[in-house]
Amino acid sequence: MLAFTGSRLDRADNVRADPDALAGMMGWRARLLALEGLMPGMDDSGALAWGSLADADPDTELVFLGLDEGKPCFAAVPPRGDASPRMANPAVWQAMASLRADDLAIYGGARSIVDWHARHRFCAQCGGGTRMAKGGWQRDCTQCGTSHFPRTDPVTIMLVEHDGRLMLGRGKGWGEGRFSALAGFVEPGESIEEAVAREVLEESGVAVRDVTYVASQPWPFPSQLMIGCHAHADDDAIRVDETELAEVRWFSRDEVTQALAGDGPFVRPPDQAIATHLLKWWSKT
Amino acid sequence: MLAFTGSRLDRADNVRADPDALAGMMGWRARLLALEGLMPGMDDSGALAWGSLADADPDTELVFLGLDEGKPCFAAVPPRGDASPRMANPAVWQAMASLRADDLAIYGGARSIVDWHARHRFCAQCGGGTRMAKGGWQRDCTQCGTSHFPRTDPVTIMLVEHDGRLMLGRGKGWGEGRFSALAGFVEPGESIEEAVAREVLEESGVAVRDVTYVASQPWPFPSQLMIGCHAHADDDAIRVDETELAEVRWFSRDEVTQALAGDGPFVRPPDQAIATHLLKWWSKT
Repeated sequence: MLAFTGSRLDRADNVRADPDALAGMMGWRARLLALEGLMPGMDDSGALAWGSLADADPDTELVFLGLDEGKPCFAAVPPRGDASPRMANPAVWQAMASLRADDLAIYGGARSIVDWHARHRFCAQCGGGTRMAKGGWQRDCTQCGTSHFPRTDPVTIMLVEHDGRLMLGRGKGWGEGRFSALAGFVEPGESIEEAVAREVLEESGVAVRDVTYVASQPWPFPSQLMIGCHAHADDDAIRVDETELAEVRWFSRDEVTQALAGDGPFVRPPDQAIATHLLKWWSKT
Repeated sequence: MLAFTGSRLDRADNVRADPDALAGMMGWRARLLALEGLMPGMDDSGALAWGSLADADPDTELVFLGLDEGKPCFAAVPPRGDASPRMANPAVWQAMASLRADDLAIYGGARSIVDWHARHRFCAQCGGGTRMAKGGWQRDCTQCGTSHFPRTDPVTIMLVEHDGRLMLGRGKGWGEGRFSALAGFVEPGESIEEAVAREVLEESGVAVRDVTYVASQPWPFPSQLMIGCHAHADDDAIRVDETELAEVRWFSRDEVTQALAGDGPFVRPPDQAIATHLLKWWSKT
């Protein structure tokens, strides 16, 4: 199972739009996710730590995450958003490696939504203040009334294959030897398949065909939807986009298999990344 | 080919971050997309109408759309955003039916991005004013410096199959007899497959398994990424979510095929919608 999937919460969306039902959820059975900023609290067994709603500052906005075996679960919006939203810091990676899979999924979803609230206290349309609505699945402008919804940014990440070899790239600033799949945000006005082809052409100069979907994963830094794909290239001549990447290279199936085993010509992405899932999938095709 | 895909523009993203290159694009060869609000201008042949940059108000922000056979293409940000962003009005549907496929894709992408600018003149983080950056692919806050990026909202839309029949729904307020695939926004913290399962369960009470990806399409009202999927249901007992849907029913393959031919027990979605593409795909499986 991919990291950040497999949450056991029932999102109970019917509660969100029903103020009475929502108020009913905020009783003594309700649990509050323990968060220090955007870092999760956890116990020794790798389970998320939870408190009661009384633990929250009375002025804090609370997001209704859903029901865990009937128990209402909430998370509090932190004072400010993540300053470097696209980066996972080392303490978060530590937590990611320690948390149980279903708890990691709950944490990821909660992190994305409370961070979105923290970064959207004002209306993009008029600059007025916004306030939480629908149990935390909406914000409304107090000035012009515009409703705003949590953001999820689709990102394509792709394995490009030519003649049995795979194209991988090393980002600028990455450690020596670290390689992963190319990736990039889907832009307005393009399909997933078109975004894959554009990104690969931009970053490597290689044209691709026959793009297929493989798997997807939510990625809460801050709230990407990673869309894993595979594509074929007819030509292997690479022209690296040096503004984004330090290196782009082709690797054989043996090299990829060795790297996955921790003993290859490159350092593979972390376990939690969909890139690793894609590499394992490809190594078996 | 799906509507809104197949744009012939080279997005030339390397130009965006290079102020000199961008300035060089804004010469006499540059073309400005003719827009009346968010409605496209077009000629009798179904081609988009273009003017020169001199047609734009001097204070208007211009988005660099890309290159059309080497010619730089721009679109101007309208004074305000679309008041009903999720709805396509009849005049737009008329234009969608008349425009050439590759021009419809250019229009869709341009519409999404200029509308995003019109609706994001303020910083969600601090309420300060924002200004366009990177040729229209970013906005920066003039007060706190936060960068904002165009939004693309992933939406799952799915055919649910049980025992050779397909589940389709009729939205509240839709005309009598109109049915289409169930659909809903992907939320933070879930994969595409999880979003499909949650949406179907919420809207119809039916549990699904074996979700597979079929196709995707950009949908510029205002900027969805439609992700078309297929799933199997083990049970056909429906419990309609009456806050969202008027009706949910199962249709046989013959009924779907008849409806696609314009002579069935329901009125199918429009040609431009991915739902129609999915129905055609399924009728042939």
